[in-house]
Amino acid sequence: MKVALEDIKSARETIGNVVRKTPLMQSAAASDLLGTDVYLKCENLQLTGSFKIRGALNKISSLNIEEKKRGVIAASAGNHAQGVALSSSKLGVKSTVVMPLNSSIVKQTATRNYGAEVVLHGEVYDEAFEYAKELEKKSGAVFIHPYQDEKIIAGQGTMGLEIFEDLPDVDSIIVSIGGGGLISGTALALKALKPSIKIYGCVAENAPAMLSMYKKEQVPTRASYISIADGIAVKKASPVMYDHFISKYVDDIISVTEDEIAEAIVFLLERSKMVVEGSGAITLAAAQKSKWDLGNKTVLTLCGGNIDLNLVGEILDRGLSRNGRVARIRLIATDRPGTLSTLTKIIGDLQANILHVEHDRMHPSLQIRETMISFVLETKNATHVAEVQAAFSSAGFRLV
Amino acid sequence: MKVALEDIKSARETIGNVVRKTPLMQSAAASDLLGTDVYLKCENLQLTGSFKIRGALNKISSLNIEEKKRGVIAASAGNHAQGVALSSSKLGVKSTVVMPLNSSIVKQTATRNYGAEVVLHGEVYDEAFEYAKELEKKSGAVFIHPYQDEKIIAGQGTMGLEIFEDLPDVDSIIVSIGGGGLISGTALALKALKPSIKIYGCVAENAPAMLSMYKKEQVPTRASYISIADGIAVKKASPVMYDHFISKYVDDIISVTEDEIAEAIVFLLERSKMVVEGSGAITLAAAQKSKWDLGNKTVLTLCGGNIDLNLVGEILDRGLSRNGRVARIRLIATDRPGTLSTLTKIIGDLQANILHVEHDRMHPSLQIRETMISFVLETKNATHVAEVQAAFSSAGFRLV
Repeated sequence: MKVALEDIKSARETIGNVVRKTPLMQSAAASDLLGTDVYLKCENLQLTGSFKIRGALNKISSLNIEEKKRGVIAASAGNHAQGVALSSSKLGVKSTVVMPLNSSIVKQTATRNYGAEVVLHGEVYDEAFEYAKELEKKSGAVFIHPYQDEKIIAGQGTMGLEIFEDLPDVDSIIVSIGGGGLISGTALALKALKPSIKIYGCVAENAPAMLSMYKKEQVPTRASYISIADGIAVKKASPVMYDHFISKYVDDIISVTEDEIAEAIVFLLERSKMVVEGSGAITLAAAQKSKWDLGNKTVLTLCGGNIDLNLVGEILDRGLSRNGRVARIRLIATDRPGTLSTLTKIIGDLQANILHVEHDRMHPSLQIRETMISFVLETKNATHVAEVQAAFSSAGFRLV
Repeated sequence: MKVALEDIKSARETIGNVVRKTPLMQSAAASDLLGTDVYLKCENLQLTGSFKIRGALNKISSLNIEEKKRGVIAASAGNHAQGVALSSSKLGVKSTVVMPLNSSIVKQTATRNYGAEVVLHGEVYDEAFEYAKELEKKSGAVFIHPYQDEKIIAGQGTMGLEIFEDLPDVDSIIVSIGGGGLISGTALALKALKPSIKIYGCVAENAPAMLSMYKKEQVPTRASYISIADGIAVKKASPVMYDHFISKYVDDIISVTEDEIAEAIVFLLERSKMVVEGSGAITLAAAQKSKWDLGNKTVLTLCGGNIDLNLVGEILDRGLSRNGRVARIRLIATDRPGTLSTLTKIIGDLQANILHVEHDRMHPSLQIRETMISFVLETKNATHVAEVQAAFSSAGFRLV
């Protein structure tokens, strides 16, 4: 498998009329956080909400007339699905996408709206993939692989050209790794244009396959393959992608925990005003965690923004709890009139805001005439939470 | 009060090195929704997260050396505070900002981090404003008005120049109105460059002061002055802004409800991957609600992104409920073993996901041996919710 800078340049000519040149935005907040100039490559603002359309459009454009007539088929739980669907529509090609049964309703709907026929099959991605390969044989449609394909990799590489165009003095770039198509294409482009650039990769601790392959050892892991960064939660790493690209062009790879990813999502929502999915926000988490030499100017690749809003609600809650902006405090009090009034006065005096209260008289750990009270409070920070807790304690309530 | 195109051009020269030229992004999703080409002017991605720095920096730059030495003072609950703080820091001027006691903790912290001294005073903005005017007299600092000032208006107008530069064939633009500085400056710039352009304004139904002044009648209103669009929830409209600018340059104004604003925020989060505060998202809601002639190309001004993350959680919940993606279903069942199992089987078979369950045996409306069960479910859409409800009913449960 071989991709050269020329292939990426020619991909750009092929897809340039449709695909968006996404903004490369300097982030004051992230620069403060990381102590160097940070630029965000906003592929979350790309058509279909992720970079995947770059490769898909380049690949499908490269099919000959006869192949285009046969239509295309793909398997995907989300971003590749939408990229293939919209690319096909733009080119007047029929597309079928097999999505696992548990894939997000929103992504199914989006894929249909972009013009694909959606077939739901399998509990997980691998089963959807196998079924798509079966359908390929039956229908004769052309299978569009999500990453292991020269045209796909060249397409993703166009992101690298844009970055270099906007920021020729870039010193380093961080890209997340699922199959490895984006980091391979981008690294190829950038190392060709500027050999001194550092290319860093990151994976979720819950799905570290490529990290193990890269470090040549099974890394310690809680590999459940379920991650907030669902776009990169792959089970197996591709030796082809490793041999031809990642081992050659990637300077280091680290893994990041779920909590670190959640915090990065919240940071980008709050400080950069952007909705970024886990597999995009993870680059910020990796930059924070690593000891990498980022140089004077680093680019974080926000590869997509397709995150389920229900999940955003949960992540916000988790992120706000972690930095003391929401507090859950539980205590045991004597069950008599006036108790709640005493408690709420303490809370009010300390300028915390009550979001939820719950009473429980029946909990097995309680004595007769005791009650357990749980508060969810809006607070300022961890210090503020500690103040409220201390005030409860010194008023004689027992925190549990 | 008089501002000309030349003043706006010269403002751009003054502030251009600091202030960001924000992206003007075509939105496929909003274009589908409105049936015309829609562009988003992303002032939520501006430094400090709102357009306010444009005017503040232009104003403070215009002070003479002696005034700069005296420092500046302002009153604001949020965006103007941050604009004044960062502008002052960039110019080496001392700044003091009076913020009401109940202003968001996050905005207070941001204002401090941008370099201002924050003074907390007053329950509402008007009290903070009065106190800032007192401090002005005592300290001799120069008061920076949030909108009623030629330099401020010229600064905000620079947004109009950018829009025309990126999209000379723009037909219409929608801007929300608080004090009216942004719409005045922008309208001035755009009507001078392209007299045929239509300028539309919008206000929150809960704070419609400028709409009443514009329509020359007290519009029917639930004017609580509390709105998700807190950035534009002003109590009084300024006759000066009306006389000199809004009556002259604005083609129409409408008002929008809280639910409509919430839905627009959710749409922009989900479809455009952007965090937009209520006073920015309201332009999308207004475009959807109005019968305005938007022409072939319209610009929605997303004036800021400074929204409290706790509020985002609530808005998501409300928005998801409204479009059937989260359902709250309550029913009465006979209190015997196996009931919950029957119910959860129905839910599982219909592929809805249980987020929360609550039992209540003590509710006064219940007969003996009855229990009330409340579910919060993750559902696909309104039809799906109706299916679940119908299945409960035909299994003999009484929905309440």
